[in-house]
Amino acid sequence: MSQYRVLIDANDEKGLVHKVSTIFFNSDLNILSNSEFVDKENNKFFMRSVVDGDINKSKLKESVEAILPASASVKVIEPKKKNIIIMATKELHALGDILIRHESGELEANILAVISNYDELESLVTKFDIPYITVTHENLERSEHEQKIIECIDSYEDVDYIVLAKYMRILTPGFVETYEDKIINIHHSFLPAFIGANPYKQAYDRGVKIIGATAHFVNNNLDEGPIISQEVKHVDHAYSWKDMQRSGRDVEKVVLSRALKLALEDRIFVYANKTVIF
Amino acid sequence: MSQYRVLIDANDEKGLVHKVSTIFFNSDLNILSNSEFVDKENNKFFMRSVVDGDINKSKLKESVEAILPASASVKVIEPKKKNIIIMATKELHALGDILIRHESGELEANILAVISNYDELESLVTKFDIPYITVTHENLERSEHEQKIIECIDSYEDVDYIVLAKYMRILTPGFVETYEDKIINIHHSFLPAFIGANPYKQAYDRGVKIIGATAHFVNNNLDEGPIISQEVKHVDHAYSWKDMQRSGRDVEKVVLSRALKLALEDRIFVYANKTVIF
Amino acid sequence: MSQYRVLIDANDEKGLVHKVSTIFFNSDLNILSNSEFVDKENNKFFMRSVVDGDINKSKLKESVEAILPASASVKVIEPKKKNIIIMATKELHALGDILIRHESGELEANILAVISNYDELESLVTKFDIPYITVTHENLERSEHEQKIIECIDSYEDVDYIVLAKYMRILTPGFVETYEDKIINIHHSFLPAFIGANPYKQAYDRGVKIIGATAHFVNNNLDEGPIISQEVKHVDHAYSWKDMQRSGRDVEKVVLSRALKLALEDRIFVYANKTVIF
Amino acid sequence: MSQYRVLIDANDEKGLVHKVSTIFFNSDLNILSNSEFVDKENNKFFMRSVVDGDINKSKLKESVEAILPASASVKVIEPKKKNIIIMATKELHALGDILIRHESGELEANILAVISNYDELESLVTKFDIPYITVTHENLERSEHEQKIIECIDSYEDVDYIVLAKYMRILTPGFVETYEDKIINIHHSFLPAFIGANPYKQAYDRGVKIIGATAHFVNNNLDEGPIISQEVKHVDHAYSWKDMQRSGRDVEKVVLSRALKLALEDRIFVYANKTVIF
Repeated sequence: MSQYRVLIDANDEKGLVHKVSTIFFNSDLNILSNSEFVDKENNKFFMRSVVDGDINKSKLKESVEAILPASASVKVIEPKKKNIIIMATKELHALGDILIRHESGELEANILAVISNYDELESLVTKFDIPYITVTHENLERSEHEQKIIECIDSYEDVDYIVLAKYMRILTPGFVETYEDKIINIHHSFLPAFIGANPYKQAYDRGVKIIGATAHFVNNNLDEGPIISQEVKHVDHAYSWKDMQRSGRDVEKVVLSRALKLALEDRIFVYANKTVIF
Repeated sequence: MSQYRVLIDANDEKGLVHKVSTIFFNSDLNILSNSEFVDKENNKFFMRSVVDGDINKSKLKESVEAILPASASVKVIEPKKKNIIIMATKELHALGDILIRHESGELEANILAVISNYDELESLVTKFDIPYITVTHENLERSEHEQKIIECIDSYEDVDYIVLAKYMRILTPGFVETYEDKIINIHHSFLPAFIGANPYKQAYDRGVKIIGATAHFVNNNLDEGPIISQEVKHVDHAYSWKDMQRSGRDVEKVVLSRALKLALEDRIFVYANKTVIF
Repeated sequence: MSQYRVLIDANDEKGLVHKVSTIFFNSDLNILSNSEFVDKENNKFFMRSVVDGDINKSKLKESVEAILPASASVKVIEPKKKNIIIMATKELHALGDILIRHESGELEANILAVISNYDELESLVTKFDIPYITVTHENLERSEHEQKIIECIDSYEDVDYIVLAKYMRILTPGFVETYEDKIINIHHSFLPAFIGANPYKQAYDRGVKIIGATAHFVNNNLDEGPIISQEVKHVDHAYSWKDMQRSGRDVEKVVLSRALKLALEDRIFVYANKTVIF
Repeated sequence: MSQYRVLIDANDEKGLVHKVSTIFFNSDLNILSNSEFVDKENNKFFMRSVVDGDINKSKLKESVEAILPASASVKVIEPKKKNIIIMATKELHALGDILIRHESGELEANILAVISNYDELESLVTKFDIPYITVTHENLERSEHEQKIIECIDSYEDVDYIVLAKYMRILTPGFVETYEDKIINIHHSFLPAFIGANPYKQAYDRGVKIIGATAHFVNNNLDEGPIISQEVKHVDHAYSWKDMQRSGRDVEKVVLSRALKLALEDRIFVYANKTVIF
């Protein structure tokens, strides 16, 4: 008996649930959970089912594809640990939260390595027997620096996600394209407010009463990729921007870890620069 | 073309989604939205679908019932305004919120009447051309008082829900049984904390840092019916219990209105003293 | 015995609390509550005290001013109902919430009138015996329309605040200057995200996972005045922008009423395009 | 120049702020922040000031005590790292969060040791070069087990706080009295709901729509000590009690770390089984 996550997106038409559930029924599969969503504006259908039964993975994929229109995308995924690489700079909280969750066994992930442009976090990471690779950007063109990181990442096989746990450098389009829909970033504001550098300073200057954090996939427009998760916290006039930064860290780490968990559990569909999350 | 809400609960077994979606497909119905949930602990299946098509309501009900086990319950509901009666005492906020929502047209409800044991709220209610009926409890046994209220309610036909918008008297088992699963109450605490009288005073005395409100169906154990919705707000040492009470009103009214909306849209299943909400 | 709210802002210097509390002590005043804040960045001191005792209001003001530097601003206010005018367009929820709170007696305010560019809300407002004045903008230049509103407002004496309860037209600098620091607006986004028209549509298009509302004083840069209060709520992919709009109304009305309450209780200091709120 | 935290609680009487601020002024102290609260019900005055200046600590304490009634309690504290001992059982999340914060330098604390009745957490703790002491309860009377823990704690000097980071055994009155007002616990419910064992199971059985966590000082009535901090999160019918437990961990760790931070910064007054927090 095997368990599978079946992810379908297709142009919507009458009978899709019927067709898919018929396949499941005829294959003698048990549906453990099932979620559907139709985006009426874009006429798009999304479905995520968790099933178990005695069937071959590729046969299941074929069977589902056979009854769906050619435009449909079907993924059949066996739950197992995904491989992630974390990139960070100097801040410890978001990285630390992932390391502790990893240690507790709650993440469906192998952390292959942590890459940073500084060595401040090395002593933390190596405590957990995870490789720490410093790729300094000093005296390097941006493209040269990124090339070194790409080489480092590509020395690992089957990297599923690259998690930017407060990696404080802007990535070039070339880098982003290399790992399309695989890079998850935490931005320290409730996007689209305060795009760019030092959002807590921007928030302080604007006099907001809430601060927040946003986890999103990275695309080539700075801080404009598909949003996965957001959270906020209330502040008041007594917060300096340093207080906002300190206090915001608790939001950042929770949001990033939540987004990573959703990705690892294959709960996210990306389309039209948005996410559908089951 | 008609739109229907189809609500199914049944003992779980393999193929239920398949069977129901096949009926929908064969009846040429369009699925506008679809939610399912299986309670594995109790082996119970719940499904709520919104469909539209050219089919007779009772025929649709028959068709679905025909393919489901006899234990299944099937409801096919046409969306239309439900009839509600509101009971209140002296406090204005929760009642006022419902009146304003009613006035705006956002509630799928006709307010047949407001019944109170005092006349304080009469001038508000009659502004909205809604009958206000004072049924005083003075000089009456509890059962006599309730009997008068029952007569008053039963003078209206097809009452779908009775909404207790801060009705501050305990109802007897007899009253509750008369309107089983039809009475929605707002209790001014995050149940099960602070059951009973004056929960804000209890909360103040305990020194809590959050207060809350709970909307629930009423059963015969005080404040122990199935919970529909809960919300909280943070407080601190500077709140007197009167401050908590004042501040809590904003939570109460939002939670009660939210629960009422869920009921009016046929989104709630009740079982095992709990709710499944789609 | 009288109760006063004493509001002080001054350039910070050592001994301000000492000086003010000495005046209170020597005047035999009882301090009911006391809040201070020093903005170290701008070297500004803010203090709000509620005191009671047997002293003349202007004498108290003089005594406090006498011991503070000339740059200090001192207000001594007797708690009493302030006069407000509400401006609205067609939406009922924010206006309705204020009307219900007013009816319950919880607002320290007299509502002098409601002004709208449409007559949709007239039947609601007149239920509460509050004057409703339709000032249509049709066939009028913006400046002409505003001039008519100004005439309407100025026909009332001692207007303390003008509350924009979803007034959907942009005000000119001339109008705003006429009522500087007196106009409170509710914007239907967590500013500074989604400035301008149709923020829910903008939010939907961006795919955010939280929506919000912001109450602020109006200045001459659209949606950029000092923020008083903000609140958010979570949404997901299943929300159309109309759903966001509907759902956001509950946030809007709560935030606007909260901001109005803070203003009526003289809890807000405005400076540097920000607010200090005690 | 030294910085001090001055904490005062006293029976309330007119002029207390005046008296204290006069001492600060005459001692040429700069007030960095200042908070007061009067509990009118109990006629109690609380004040926390942060001051800096050129004065001896004991002289400052004497000066303040000299002008206050004999019933007043005055503490003058120099900000410095406090000594804490953490007790845990097998769960990693709350302990891990404290370890990461400690590593980042954000906690004003030295972690002297972690004590557990199991050895599961040893490999995590020793990574951080913090002593891990397993005191098994097997084959021991409760009092014998606690005596061993007390010996272990008392082998360290100047222990300021004992933090129960999911220590899953009930402490006897004898233990609690030994460390009165020094033991901070995290309980995995929004107290007073779900006192006692397995609160997530209780919450699941009750069908609540919010779960929560409460950090509190420990006294001799189980889960009834003074509450420091509480937080909640929304759940729905789809959560099993294991899901609630998993999801609740994120709330637990944030609340415990927040409470610990408040204690380390001397922001908490305890009285009447409640807390005043500045």
